[in-house]
Amino acid sequence: MPKIIDHEARRKELARAAWRVIRRHGLEGATVRNVAKEAGMSVGSLRHYFKSQSELLAFSMRLISERVEKRIFQLQEQGLTGDIRADVTRMLEEVLPLDEERVSESIVWLGFVSRALVDPALAPLSAEVHESMLRFMRMLAEALLALLPDRTGLDAELEARRLQALLDGIVVHALGNPDSVTPETIRRILAYHLDQMLQRPLGTR
Amino acid sequence: MPKIIDHEARRKELARAAWRVIRRHGLEGATVRNVAKEAGMSVGSLRHYFKSQSELLAFSMRLISERVEKRIFQLQEQGLTGDIRADVTRMLEEVLPLDEERVSESIVWLGFVSRALVDPALAPLSAEVHESMLRFMRMLAEALLALLPDRTGLDAELEARRLQALLDGIVVHALGNPDSVTPETIRRILAYHLDQMLQRPLGTR
Repeated sequence: MPKIIDHEARRKELARAAWRVIRRHGLEGATVRNVAKEAGMSVGSLRHYFKSQSELLAFSMRLISERVEKRIFQLQEQGLTGDIRADVTRMLEEVLPLDEERVSESIVWLGFVSRALVDPALAPLSAEVHESMLRFMRMLAEALLALLPDRTGLDAELEARRLQALLDGIVVHALGNPDSVTPETIRRILAYHLDQMLQRPLGTR
Repeated sequence: MPKIIDHEARRKELARAAWRVIRRHGLEGATVRNVAKEAGMSVGSLRHYFKSQSELLAFSMRLISERVEKRIFQLQEQGLTGDIRADVTRMLEEVLPLDEERVSESIVWLGFVSRALVDPALAPLSAEVHESMLRFMRMLAEALLALLPDRTGLDAELEARRLQALLDGIVVHALGNPDSVTPETIRRILAYHLDQMLQRPLGTR
């Protein structure tokens, strides 16, 4: 009886192996050779699933996007409280490096973004990740601004863009300076930002 | 007569060669071999100046920090208008990728930050760069908040931290998505952020 290989499952397994290698050695260590070794297979077999390091990296990035989307979807399905600000905070926290799992995801994201700057093969996915996150930020910014009785002087598009920049800046800082930008500090910065967006009295602009 | 070599000048020349290589091939392309080739010297000679790729990268990062500090110092010496908001904007623009030169600096910074995550030799300089930027942000946040007659509910430390995150997030987005995050968009996000910090009426909190 021939061995049945689940191609997609094997690709995911390899993406997870790549992830472990990236966490230990950085993106430049995630060579096809190292990932094959980590996954316990030959370089030739790995090339059956991923033709290049870029393809492997793109797949890892997609895997992470899917994980994040799934968590946010689950939150929306069952975890929301109806308190818009609290709910937005929980959704934003899904893309912040607040625990080991999200730190790993952030490391892959940052590595992917850095590599995409010089690898044209990654540019389309990089743009897609950016735009998808911006759409998510627009949705959250709209939900927050809808809480305000007076939106004079406010701009949902710019709120979305600065929220996205704020989050990704926090990610970079927290990864590089975990002693300074702790999970507690991350939560304080985020809460403060939402305070500033929302705690404005009626009709003052 | 022996050839006189200005060691420091040569190191700077090599750091600039490294910078050119990084811009073309990314950080993973900035090997000692490639940088030596770019600088027109042998690998052996280059190792006389930098013992490792990390040392070379750290030197490039220092060079960029010095360039930015020098520009900001010059601004403070001769370029300020006395309009605090306009002056803060000009100082912040010195660390944003608004032209070719600052794009290059940002690329080196992002590459350095990514690499520092996995190279312990770079961690001290990475922390130093982060802290030095945070001090600068504190100074600017203080200057801005001092414009407000009522600071109730405001926190200079959190303003500094979110400003720093906002800027670095913008850098990452602009490098990866120059068509979406254009210099004009960068300026609009920054202006909007300062609007939100400053356009609050007296005594509303």
